[in-house]
Amino acid sequence: MKWAKALFEPRGVAVVGSASQGKIGYELIQQLTEGGFDRVVAVNPKGVGAFDVPGVTSLSEIPEDMTVDLAVIAAPAATVAGVLEDCGRAGVGAAVLITAGFSESGNHAEEEKVLRVARTHGIRVIGPNCAGIVNTRHRLFPTLETRPPAGDVAFISQSGALGGAVLSWAEEQGMGFSKFVSYGNAADLSEIDLLDYLRNDEETKAVALYIESVSDGRRFMETARRLSAVKPLIVIKSGRSESGSRATLSHTGSMAGADAVYDAALTQCGAIRVAGVEEMFDLCRGFVSLPPVKGKRIAIVTNSGGPGVLATDAAESVGLEIISPSDALRTRLKETLHPYCSLGNPIDLTVQGTEDDYRNALVEILDEADAALAINVNTPYLDASPLARGVVAAAQATGKPVVANFMAGRTVETALPVLQNGDVPNFATGERAVRALGEMASWAAGCGVAEDGRRTADETRELPWEGQATEIDAMRWLQSNGVPVIAHRLCRTVEEAVEAQTTFDRPVAMKVVSPEILHKTDVGGVMLGLATGEEIGAAFDRMREIGGATFEGVLVTPMADHPVEVLVGLTRDPQFGPVIAVGMGGVLTEVLHDVCLRVAPVDEAEARRMLASLRGQPLLEGHRGRPACDISALAGLISRVSDLPFVYPEIGELDLNPVFCSETGCEAADARVVRET
Amino acid sequence: MKWAKALFEPRGVAVVGSASQGKIGYELIQQLTEGGFDRVVAVNPKGVGAFDVPGVTSLSEIPEDMTVDLAVIAAPAATVAGVLEDCGRAGVGAAVLITAGFSESGNHAEEEKVLRVARTHGIRVIGPNCAGIVNTRHRLFPTLETRPPAGDVAFISQSGALGGAVLSWAEEQGMGFSKFVSYGNAADLSEIDLLDYLRNDEETKAVALYIESVSDGRRFMETARRLSAVKPLIVIKSGRSESGSRATLSHTGSMAGADAVYDAALTQCGAIRVAGVEEMFDLCRGFVSLPPVKGKRIAIVTNSGGPGVLATDAAESVGLEIISPSDALRTRLKETLHPYCSLGNPIDLTVQGTEDDYRNALVEILDEADAALAINVNTPYLDASPLARGVVAAAQATGKPVVANFMAGRTVETALPVLQNGDVPNFATGERAVRALGEMASWAAGCGVAEDGRRTADETRELPWEGQATEIDAMRWLQSNGVPVIAHRLCRTVEEAVEAQTTFDRPVAMKVVSPEILHKTDVGGVMLGLATGEEIGAAFDRMREIGGATFEGVLVTPMADHPVEVLVGLTRDPQFGPVIAVGMGGVLTEVLHDVCLRVAPVDEAEARRMLASLRGQPLLEGHRGRPACDISALAGLISRVSDLPFVYPEIGELDLNPVFCSETGCEAADARVVRET
Repeated sequence: MKWAKALFEPRGVAVVGSASQGKIGYELIQQLTEGGFDRVVAVNPKGVGAFDVPGVTSLSEIPEDMTVDLAVIAAPAATVAGVLEDCGRAGVGAAVLITAGFSESGNHAEEEKVLRVARTHGIRVIGPNCAGIVNTRHRLFPTLETRPPAGDVAFISQSGALGGAVLSWAEEQGMGFSKFVSYGNAADLSEIDLLDYLRNDEETKAVALYIESVSDGRRFMETARRLSAVKPLIVIKSGRSESGSRATLSHTGSMAGADAVYDAALTQCGAIRVAGVEEMFDLCRGFVSLPPVKGKRIAIVTNSGGPGVLATDAAESVGLEIISPSDALRTRLKETLHPYCSLGNPIDLTVQGTEDDYRNALVEILDEADAALAINVNTPYLDASPLARGVVAAAQATGKPVVANFMAGRTVETALPVLQNGDVPNFATGERAVRALGEMASWAAGCGVAEDGRRTADETRELPWEGQATEIDAMRWLQSNGVPVIAHRLCRTVEEAVEAQTTFDRPVAMKVVSPEILHKTDVGGVMLGLATGEEIGAAFDRMREIGGATFEGVLVTPMADHPVEVLVGLTRDPQFGPVIAVGMGGVLTEVLHDVCLRVAPVDEAEARRMLASLRGQPLLEGHRGRPACDISALAGLISRVSDLPFVYPEIGELDLNPVFCSETGCEAADARVVRET
Repeated sequence: MKWAKALFEPRGVAVVGSASQGKIGYELIQQLTEGGFDRVVAVNPKGVGAFDVPGVTSLSEIPEDMTVDLAVIAAPAATVAGVLEDCGRAGVGAAVLITAGFSESGNHAEEEKVLRVARTHGIRVIGPNCAGIVNTRHRLFPTLETRPPAGDVAFISQSGALGGAVLSWAEEQGMGFSKFVSYGNAADLSEIDLLDYLRNDEETKAVALYIESVSDGRRFMETARRLSAVKPLIVIKSGRSESGSRATLSHTGSMAGADAVYDAALTQCGAIRVAGVEEMFDLCRGFVSLPPVKGKRIAIVTNSGGPGVLATDAAESVGLEIISPSDALRTRLKETLHPYCSLGNPIDLTVQGTEDDYRNALVEILDEADAALAINVNTPYLDASPLARGVVAAAQATGKPVVANFMAGRTVETALPVLQNGDVPNFATGERAVRALGEMASWAAGCGVAEDGRRTADETRELPWEGQATEIDAMRWLQSNGVPVIAHRLCRTVEEAVEAQTTFDRPVAMKVVSPEILHKTDVGGVMLGLATGEEIGAAFDRMREIGGATFEGVLVTPMADHPVEVLVGLTRDPQFGPVIAVGMGGVLTEVLHDVCLRVAPVDEAEARRMLASLRGQPLLEGHRGRPACDISALAGLISRVSDLPFVYPEIGELDLNPVFCSETGCEAADARVVRET
C-alpha cells in the first residue's frame, strides 16, 4: 500500500500551520524533533521554523534535498483545501489533518471539498479532526499526545482524546506500541483501511481498536475477519447503553438494538470485545508477550493460599479448567518440592517457596497444563527477584504461556523488570491475569475457524404475494424455500375443520386467518387443544366473529407433544443489513431476553454456535430425561432462513415463533413476514 | 472491651522469641521501633535485645517502669503455653501468636492447651499462625508485613499473606489503614470479636474483611449486621468455585452450595461482597473519602467524549441513572460554559475545558444529581492541576460525592495530590469510578433497613407423622401452620375421584399417593387435565398399578388456569442452619438456576426482596397483559415457610414445588418434607 509507506515511513515531513510558540504547529515540530525524526520542514505564512527545523512560506519552497511524503496539517479549516493543492503539486503522498471544524461540527461541504482536492492529487488523508499518528519504529511522532514506548501493539482510535490517554498510560502499564492512528472524521482513510494494512504489518503482533461506530458494517466485518485470522483484534466499542435506541427486532423487542448487532458482528469476525481500557491493556500485554494459549487447562503456583483461591474462582468463571495433577505428576512434585508445599492445584509453595521451587513446580505442572499463573505475595523483607527468575526460567524451559501476579507495590519492585525482560507479563491481580489467559485461550480456539459465511444469492426474487401475507401464504412460501413448516390445513367451514382434526388424529390448534389480524393471540384468535366436534364448532364460530369482514377461514394444525419451542427472526440493521435472531422462545425470550443475534447469513456451524450460546440451550439437549432435539435440522433451518433476505430483498422482518423442535426434526409453527418499507 | 485496649493500645509490648538477626523476633522488634513505638522489651532465653530494645530472659524480669499489656509471641510452638503462663503472671492482657504449627497443621491438642492457659489467666489471643496486627494511630506495628500509611479503613484478614499483600499495595493505591489484624487460626478472638469491636472504633470509617470461612454463621451475621448498620463492611469471601461441593438443596440441586449461602448471608446482613482486592480498594477509598451517595442519579463531566461514553455504559450496567439535565439547568449551563461544550450528560467540556468550566459544570449539575464523576483525559502539554482544583472546589461547594478519573500516567501527576487532599478519590478508569459509586449508592439505600429478621419459635413441636410424610400429610400440616395449599381430595376409589372432579367443576390433576413413591413425576404418577369419567377411570387404574402394594389412593386437585409457578424450598447449611430458596419454577429454576437463597427466617420485606432479585420476576408482575400476582400473599407464604424449621427442628428439607400464584393469592400445589437425619 503506497499510502501506508508515505504515512508511516515518510522520507520527509512538512508541518503546515503556525510554528509560533504555543501553537499546534510548534508543538508538532517539538514532538517530531524530540522523538528523533530529523527531516522536518515548517510551512506557514511567516515562513518561520522552530527547534532547528527550517521554515518556508509554501510547500513549493521546500529545499531540494528533502522529499516530503507526509504533510501534517494544523492550518485553519478554510485554508486546508488550498494547502492540499500545494501538497499535490509538491508530490506529497499522505496528509494528516489535525485541524477540526469539518463534518464533526456540521461543516460537511468543506470536508467534501478537501476530499475532492485530495483525490484529484492522489493524496490519502487521515482525519480531519484527529490527534495524529505514531510509528515508533520510524521514530515518527506527528501527534500532540504522549510519545509512547515502542512495542508490538498497533492502536487505532476513533477518539483522539481516548487515544491520547491510552498512550499516556502505556508506559506505567509496561506497554509499547508499533503504530498509533487517531483517524478522526475518516473522510478518506478509515478504520477499515488501517485494519487492512495492519494485517500484513510485520511490526504489529496485536491490534487494539477503539470505535464508537463504523461506516460500512459489512466491509468492516470482512476486513476484521481477515485480520483476526492472523493476529488478535481487541476492540472497545463504546455506547453499549444506547442499546435499544435504534433498530429493534419485531418480536424480540428490547433485546436487539444497534449495540447488540455490533456485539454479534465482532463475535462473528473473531474480534475480542473488551469493556474498557484496563482490559484492553491486559489482553494486549498477554498477546504480545506470550506464545498461544492452546487450551483451557490451567495451573496456578502460589506462595499464599488466599490469592490462589481468588484466582481459581476467577479462572473458573471465565471457563478455564484448573487441572488436577496426575498421580505421577504429584509424585514428581513431592520429590522436587519442599515438604510443606500443598500439591493440589493451586500448588501452594508457602512463604518458604524459593526460586527453585517456582521453577520446578511450574516446569512439572506445565507438562499437564496449557498455561500457568505464578503468584508471589511477597514478604517485605525478602527479595522478590529470585522468585521472578524462577518463573521466567520455567516459561523459557517449557515454551508455554506463563503469567504472573507479583504483589505488591515496592516489595516486588526489583522483580518486575525480571519478569518483563523474560516475557512473563505481570498483572495487578491474579484475577486479571487469568481473565487474560481465558480470552487468549478462546481466541486461539476460534482463530482461523471464523470462516466467511457470506454467500451471494444467485438471483433475487419477489415475494409471491401482494401487501401483507396471511400466515398460510407465509407457510407455503417458507416450505417452497426449504424451510420445514408444521402440517396445516386452511379450513373455510366447520366441516372442513372437523375433517382436518380427524385426519391429524389428535387434538388441534386453530388460528383465525384474516389479512387484517397480525397479532392473533392478542385478539383471542388462537385456540389450542381442540379435540371434539363441539369444541371445534364453538372455536370456529368464535374465529369467524373475530375475523369479521375479512375472515378467510381458520388454520388447523395438529398439537405437538410438548415440543421445545424456539424463536427464529430476521430484521435489518441500518449499519449491518440483515440480522438473524435465535432464542429459546417463551419466558426465556420474553422475560430474560435470552436471544442470540448474528449478522446474516450464517452457515450451519455458526447456527450451532448461536444455539450453544443461549442460556436455555440445555432444553435442546434433552433436559430432564427427554430426548435431545435434532440440532442438525434446527441449524439447517436457521441457516436457510438467514439466506432469505438475500434472495428476497423485500423482506423487512420475519418471525418464526415458535419453531417446534423434537428429536425427529423441527418445523415452523407460525410465521409472520413484514415487507421492508 | 478490655482486650482491645491491651491489643491495640498497649502501654508496653514484649516480643517473645529469638532476637538474633534474621529471626522473626528481630524483625518484629525492628518493625516496632522503626514504626515509632518505643516501649518494647525483648524476651528470649539469651536475654538479648536489638535496636536499642532491652532484652530479658523471662517476662518476670521486665523492668519495673514498663507495663506490658501485649505479648507478641514468635517462640516455638511447644513453648507457647509456657510463655502464656509467664504472661499471665506478668499481667499481660493480650497476646498475638505469630507462631505456626498448631491446628492448621493438625496439632489441635497444642492449640487447645494454649487456649486453656490463656483462659485461665484472662489473656485474649490473636492467632496462632497469624501475621500480626497494626494500629497506625498508636504507631504500633507488631507484624512482618509492610507498615501501611494511616487512614480510616480497618482490614481484618483470615489469610496473613493476602493481608500482607494488601498492606504493601496500599500506599501506591492511595489507601491508609486504621487497624489491621491477621487473625490466623482464631483459636480465641475471631473475626466476630473484631467486627464487634470495630463497630464502635472511632478511628475506623469502613471495614474490609477477607474470609475463607466463618466459624459460627449465625453469630457472624448478627455481628456483621450490627456493624453494617453504622459503617460499610466490604467482604472478600474466596472459594466461590467450591460452590456445589457441600450442602445442596434437594430439588434445586446444583444451584445451592456453601458459597451461595455465604452470598445470601452477606447480602442479608448488609455487607458488600466484592470479587477481589482491586474492587475492595476502590470501594474503601470511596467510602472513606466521600459523603454518602444518597441516590442513583449520576452526572458525568468530561473533556473527552469516548471515556465519557464508556463510563456511561458502566454506570447503567450497575444500575445508576445518568440524569438528563432539566431545561432550566441547561440554560444555566449554557450561560456559564464556553460555547463548544456539549450540554447533555455526560457534559463534554471538550479539550478546551478549564478549571472554571469543571467547577461550574459540576456545581450546576450536582443541583440535580446525587453524585458526579469528573473525567479529565489530559493533554500532555497542559497542566492538569488547575482542572483538579476545579473539581475539588465543586465537591467542597456542593458537599456532594464527586469522584475523578484523571488519565493518565505522568500527564496527571501534579493533579493527583490535589484530588487526594481535596477528598476526591481518583480511579484508574471511569468505569471503576462509577462502579464504586453504584455500590455506595446501594449501600446507602439499604443501610439501616437490613433489620434483624431473626425470630425465636415460642415452642418447638414434632412433625405430626411417623417416618416419611405422604403428600396429603404434608399438605394438611402446611395448612395447619398457616401455609395456604391447593384444594385437594384424597380419593380411594374411582367413584370418589369422579365425584371430586364434579365438585371442583373443572379438569383435575391426579397424583398417586404412596409412602414409597417420592418422585411421582418420574414414575408417571402424575396426570393432568382429566375432565371426563373415562379419563379419570383410566388414570385411576394406572395410578393403582404404579402405587402397587403401598397404594393409598389418588390425590385429586383442580387444574389451575395458567398460574405462575414458583418454587419455595428449605434446606440446612452446616454453617448457617436453615436456608430458604425461592425460584420461579420450571425452566427458570431447572435450566437457568434462577433461585434466590436467604438464611432463614425471613420477614415479608426480605421475601419481597428475594422475589425482586429473580430474573424471572417480571412473570409475577403481570407479564404480557396478565394480571399481577398477589405478591403480598406470596411474601407471606415465604416468610411463614421460613419459620417452620425453627418450630419443627426435625425438618431437614422441604420443597413446595410448585406454588401456584395468581392475582387472588397463592397456594402450594405439591409438598415434600424430608426429616433431618
